[in-house]
Amino acid sequence: MRDVAVISTGITKFGELWDTPLRDLFAEATLACIKDAGIEKKQIQSAYIGCMTSGLFVGQEHLASILCDYAGLNPIAATRVESACASGGAAFRAAYLEVASGASDFVLAGGVEKMNDGADATYCLATAADQEYEVYHGVTFPGLYAMIAHAHMHKYGTTPEQMAAVAVKNHKNGAKNPHGQFPMEITVETVLKAVRVAEPLGLFDCSPVTDGAAVALLCPVEVAKELGKPIVKIIGSGHATDCIALHDRADLAAIPVVGKAARRAYDQAGVGPKDIDFCEVHDCFTIAEILCTEELGFFERGHGGPAVADGRTALDGEKPINTSGGLKSKGHPVGATGIAQIHELYAQLSGNAGPRQLKSPRLGMAQNMGGSGGSSTVHILEVVS
Amino acid sequence: MRDVAVISTGITKFGELWDTPLRDLFAEATLACIKDAGIEKKQIQSAYIGCMTSGLFVGQEHLASILCDYAGLNPIAATRVESACASGGAAFRAAYLEVASGASDFVLAGGVEKMNDGADATYCLATAADQEYEVYHGVTFPGLYAMIAHAHMHKYGTTPEQMAAVAVKNHKNGAKNPHGQFPMEITVETVLKAVRVAEPLGLFDCSPVTDGAAVALLCPVEVAKELGKPIVKIIGSGHATDCIALHDRADLAAIPVVGKAARRAYDQAGVGPKDIDFCEVHDCFTIAEILCTEELGFFERGHGGPAVADGRTALDGEKPINTSGGLKSKGHPVGATGIAQIHELYAQLSGNAGPRQLKSPRLGMAQNMGGSGGSSTVHILEVVS
Repeated sequence: MRDVAVISTGITKFGELWDTPLRDLFAEATLACIKDAGIEKKQIQSAYIGCMTSGLFVGQEHLASILCDYAGLNPIAATRVESACASGGAAFRAAYLEVASGASDFVLAGGVEKMNDGADATYCLATAADQEYEVYHGVTFPGLYAMIAHAHMHKYGTTPEQMAAVAVKNHKNGAKNPHGQFPMEITVETVLKAVRVAEPLGLFDCSPVTDGAAVALLCPVEVAKELGKPIVKIIGSGHATDCIALHDRADLAAIPVVGKAARRAYDQAGVGPKDIDFCEVHDCFTIAEILCTEELGFFERGHGGPAVADGRTALDGEKPINTSGGLKSKGHPVGATGIAQIHELYAQLSGNAGPRQLKSPRLGMAQNMGGSGGSSTVHILEVVS
Repeated sequence: MRDVAVISTGITKFGELWDTPLRDLFAEATLACIKDAGIEKKQIQSAYIGCMTSGLFVGQEHLASILCDYAGLNPIAATRVESACASGGAAFRAAYLEVASGASDFVLAGGVEKMNDGADATYCLATAADQEYEVYHGVTFPGLYAMIAHAHMHKYGTTPEQMAAVAVKNHKNGAKNPHGQFPMEITVETVLKAVRVAEPLGLFDCSPVTDGAAVALLCPVEVAKELGKPIVKIIGSGHATDCIALHDRADLAAIPVVGKAARRAYDQAGVGPKDIDFCEVHDCFTIAEILCTEELGFFERGHGGPAVADGRTALDGEKPINTSGGLKSKGHPVGATGIAQIHELYAQLSGNAGPRQLKSPRLGMAQNMGGSGGSSTVHILEVVS
């Protein structure tokens, strides 16, 4: 396999973008990415685009073709990739493998979702759960994660205040991110007093409904060197699946798919949790961030809640988590989230993260998750110049 | 890049399978494929599954996770791939690239669609066209292909009788295929007198609405040799996109994306149209087969109609097209079609095509298409043992 690098990224504003159609979102992020890379459009041979459910959100499938046509990339090979909210991570992995194979030199990995166009977002998102055995009976994602939260609270003593600390930290980071949907700081009190969605989760425990797109450009490390760009190398790529129905899991207080995907990425990279300088984690709900930091091996089981409450995952903590503001503050256009995480890794590793810049990070990780843990991707990136 | 082979395939009955849920369709084809390969499930590392719009057809996204879980493949890396009716071909290409890269040895390429579960199939399929500029104004796929047919008739003199000859030939081949939806022979008169769908296309010019799944297993040629299986090597893989809206095309009597994808496959394989012994072509409508055989270089522009009417593409003709019965007779579960084409190639090349077996074919081609030509994949397979 060839060594593969990320050499540029592009991202739109995240938010309720009523004036911007789906196709324009992708084009905006793609053109920014290509401009940043300093290459010609015609050099790009292929694209993988993560999108969860444009068919339900806006009535449009055949997505990669229409998006690439509007971005001026026609007639490249282009494929839409779906793994619910891990669609972006899956697209990144497919692009990585195509470059690694030697079939193509320049491959785009994109993600996009248009969630505020009138469709019932709660129903659309619920299609990431088991339609026949969960959704049909009325379950929604806040309900599923509420069950996970209750199990974690019962088993490990995790508290609502610890979950609130996730939201407070991520909004504090997100206030420094110009692309985010809700870039304002909040307090623990705000989170705890917010309207309830599904006990123990309130409004501020939940990531928002978001429109947005993000794109990353990949090429062989050897080619990247010739371009004189900051080179961020992909040293680990892990992807795993699990049953998507919560009732089929052995333990509701764990999300084992994350640990399995992480193990594959760690093994490939030859590193462990201690080596990771910072991580973008899939905080679709505050409890999800706590569990994921445990599954990734950053903290022992049951220690994720205390860790965030004690500031260990803050921007100036020992293991900064979600420096971008995470899904919670930055927003969660589901298909785009996995690539937006890569955008943050590239910004941090190339020293371009502005007011939220970490001090000389070397290894960054992005963990993207589908549904209530039916799939996860984990990527480890290393800056090499 | 490593050389990659197909070592087994699996397929379900195609038809109106009211008693079989989506997940069971995939499991049935997958288990048949794995049994045929003679390997253990746990040796499979990854899967790509083509499906166009399970979100709209049955309310289920996060598809690769749920399908692989039900097939007993959890926790492998698994990704759903979508390129409208070319989703299967795109999944096959992604699986090919992953094995070629060296990242995995055994990768499944699957395709599935459940179209007869109560949803409005015409609307679901229309999401492969441009939602904002075509579908919103009432166009459907029979209408789009009717416009293409009119353009081809006007420019080249193609006749309804020539289009009917496509249906007659494919039903004649399909009558020899036990997996097909409509395995009966028909006459030109039946086609011409059938109820009109969109002039000049009648009911028998259109492929049916179908449930079904197909799966192929890929591995490195070197590994395949150790297994003692018939080895069918992938020597060319082409994929291209175009604008999906018909009004953006320069010429309605051409589908240039097919020619572009074919050129990439021919170039990689180092062969030309004359070298191809037989081809599975995307005959979603009879006119589509005529255009595709022209785009693939088998016949000059405008000669595709006379060629089929003269029997040149029959089972005993110089260039057999759609020996399986094609989409027309076998059925067209949209996400599965691209893999069902590979199933036919593998059957013919390994000498297991039963009453429709060709005499010692060496090179087979599969051409899968999305929408009215917004995307296409072309694969060339060669039997090497």
